[in-house]
Amino acid sequence: MPAPDPIEHLIGLLARLPGFGRRSARRAVLKMLMQPEQSMLPLAAALRDAAAAVRPCRLCGNLDDQDPCHICRDPQRDQSVICVVEGVAELWALERAHAHRGLYHVLGGTLSAIGGVGPEDLSVQPLLARIAEQGVEEVILALPATVDGATTAHFLSDRLRSTGVRVTRLAQGVPIGGALDVLDEGTLAAALKARRVV
Amino acid sequence: MPAPDPIEHLIGLLARLPGFGRRSARRAVLKMLMQPEQSMLPLAAALRDAAAAVRPCRLCGNLDDQDPCHICRDPQRDQSVICVVEGVAELWALERAHAHRGLYHVLGGTLSAIGGVGPEDLSVQPLLARIAEQGVEEVILALPATVDGATTAHFLSDRLRSTGVRVTRLAQGVPIGGALDVLDEGTLAAALKARRVV
Ligand SMILES: [Zn+2]
Ligand SMILES: [Zn+2]
Repeated sequence: MPAPDPIEHLIGLLARLPGFGRRSARRAVLKMLMQPEQSMLPLAAALRDAAAAVRPCRLCGNLDDQDPCHICRDPQRDQSVICVVEGVAELWALERAHAHRGLYHVLGGTLSAIGGVGPEDLSVQPLLARIAEQGVEEVILALPATVDGATTAHFLSDRLRSTGVRVTRLAQGVPIGGALDVLDEGTLAAALKARRVV
Repeated sequence: MPAPDPIEHLIGLLARLPGFGRRSARRAVLKMLMQPEQSMLPLAAALRDAAAAVRPCRLCGNLDDQDPCHICRDPQRDQSVICVVEGVAELWALERAHAHRGLYHVLGGTLSAIGGVGPEDLSVQPLLARIAEQGVEEVILALPATVDGATTAHFLSDRLRSTGVRVTRLAQGVPIGGALDVLDEGTLAAALKARRVV
């Protein structure tokens, strides 16, 4: 173990981040140690600030420093359309595509027989409650083009049928097996625009 | 800008780290926000601890939480052999190869006509002082196999000639243009073992 404890400890924590290995963690730490005051302390403060300020929106599940989140608060957004996404990463990806002017609902996952994820593990009841309370006219199922995503979309469209709300899903155009948050924004925007009734 | 300010700020800082882009920074932040207490606060603390504790060793230039560093303090290390490296990344790479049992000296760069780096910008005088004070018998020039690295090795072996110390360099085996800190440990160990007199 060549590096001393505080450095090894920091490298170990950074190496756990997705997309970061031990080698890149080591490089990042060395680079920061050249100017610790200018690089490490601001990053430490930003982490603490984000941890303190950010929480899930009680309405949609988005992560924000306001609750309800800035999307749910925005009077310009179309309150009658809710786009259902697996997680916050997908919500942000759709926002970056500037393709959806309604609201969102974060499910918190997809149904998975293998993963042991059932309807009670997802934010399904809160979605039904929102539909019952607000004047929701359309629910867009923006779920991943995987087996679990399709299963979840099928389950939700069944549950939503009795509400009389229009249920649509993203157009084919999302690659099979593809994660939404790594898609280019043009593809996302096109798939959203060409959505069709389930 | 889909994400709120504290999150965007944190993503921006993380995206500046080498090996990290905006996309991976966003993923890392989202993952951490799932468990802010368990992931963000420990990382923030580790950054602050490292920034507070770590400083350059006054003898060799290694980064450590002790000064002199744990290598310079280690009575088991061979005080008569100093391995000269460009930076701390290279020092750590050689330590990971467990190939050098002597001490180190961090130059802080290589000579570069284009980059405007002259001998006075590198830790050359302190190296000469260490050689004059300690009973140094060999200086190993473990510099990169680049034009600037070769220029620097040439310059140093000239300056060291009058000291009577034995000057060696890493064996050929280091790929041309290759950075030391990305080499596999076996290659590094072999190149060190087969070092030859300049
Ligand atoms: Zn919200
Ligand atoms: Zn030292």
